[in-house]
Amino acid sequence: MRILGLPGSLRAASINAMLLRATVRLAPPEIEVSIFRGLGDLPLFNPDLEASRPGNVAAFHRAVAEADALLFASPEYAHGVTGTIKNALDWLVGFEPFANKIVAVLNASPRAHHADDALRETLRTMAAVIVEPASITIPLLGAGLDEAALVATSSIAGAVREALRAIQLAVASRQGSLTAQFPLS
Amino acid sequence: MRILGLPGSLRAASINAMLLRATVRLAPPEIEVSIFRGLGDLPLFNPDLEASRPGNVAAFHRAVAEADALLFASPEYAHGVTGTIKNALDWLVGFEPFANKIVAVLNASPRAHHADDALRETLRTMAAVIVEPASITIPLLGAGLDEAALVATSSIAGAVREALRAIQLAVASRQGSLTAQFPLS
Repeated sequence: MRILGLPGSLRAASINAMLLRATVRLAPPEIEVSIFRGLGDLPLFNPDLEASRPGNVAAFHRAVAEADALLFASPEYAHGVTGTIKNALDWLVGFEPFANKIVAVLNASPRAHHADDALRETLRTMAAVIVEPASITIPLLGAGLDEAALVATSSIAGAVREALRAIQLAVASRQGSLTAQFPLS
Repeated sequence: MRILGLPGSLRAASINAMLLRATVRLAPPEIEVSIFRGLGDLPLFNPDLEASRPGNVAAFHRAVAEADALLFASPEYAHGVTGTIKNALDWLVGFEPFANKIVAVLNASPRAHHADDALRETLRTMAAVIVEPASITIPLLGAGLDEAALVATSSIAGAVREALRAIQLAVASRQGSLTAQFPLS
């Protein structure tokens, strides 16, 4: 199963990007988590260019299409979503494979709710399926943890692994593979 | 007095950009309205690059600093602000001359409120001063008007001119020029 992580901040020391990198390391062997690192290279969305998919838009679309689920981790800027994450979503609005995509939204800043609310509203509007048990708040802002500490902190590692399991369950339920693995008869 | 128009869509036929172009034509001689046409060329905001102001960020900052007021006209994409307009704002969060800037928000889509609400919330958070009498809804979506028709439609032209007057009044009040023109004694 493939999960694609989408970090909403381009800052090198971003705690959201760090959380996604930690998630890559914490994933059990049967779940492959990767991070799309090109959101900062996407052109700004222009409906007139949608069909031609300029720059790395085609690569972004391919990565999204190939993922069983998307995992967002994005900060709040001035009580709103970041331009970076919204621009990425703008390129997905008309991308058919995004509809009904299984997604989860991590929130590393418990006090920030505007961006989290807005991101969920947009995802619902785009017909994404939000996995609520995987869309958790992990209070990292100001915690001063680096990536290694994050992986080593059992409460955080446990919460991340549970979120991944919840995504896995949602993907498996859709694929009907649970039924295949555990036949009723 | 200088008003800088900021269109949130890069589409050539954008009704928001058209509304701003009409506003340029409808402005009375003492109000200069110009449009910043480079929002689509701004790099995606990266806090690590904020100080170096890459690409056309410095030109954008200069245009904002030189304006007495900003006039936003931006569509709603998937129940959210456009990535383009939010990215522009992300570059202004740490730009000192933006604080206390007089701004107005035009809304060309009466049924769209998520983006309008979110844009206002972000502007307030960034300490902009929203001129409410100038932040009006002008129902253009689906009206099928081109720029010339828009300028020629008296109800629209009147509403735009009133909005400009309201911005002018807010700028003048701040500069104390009203007091200078109409001394109490």
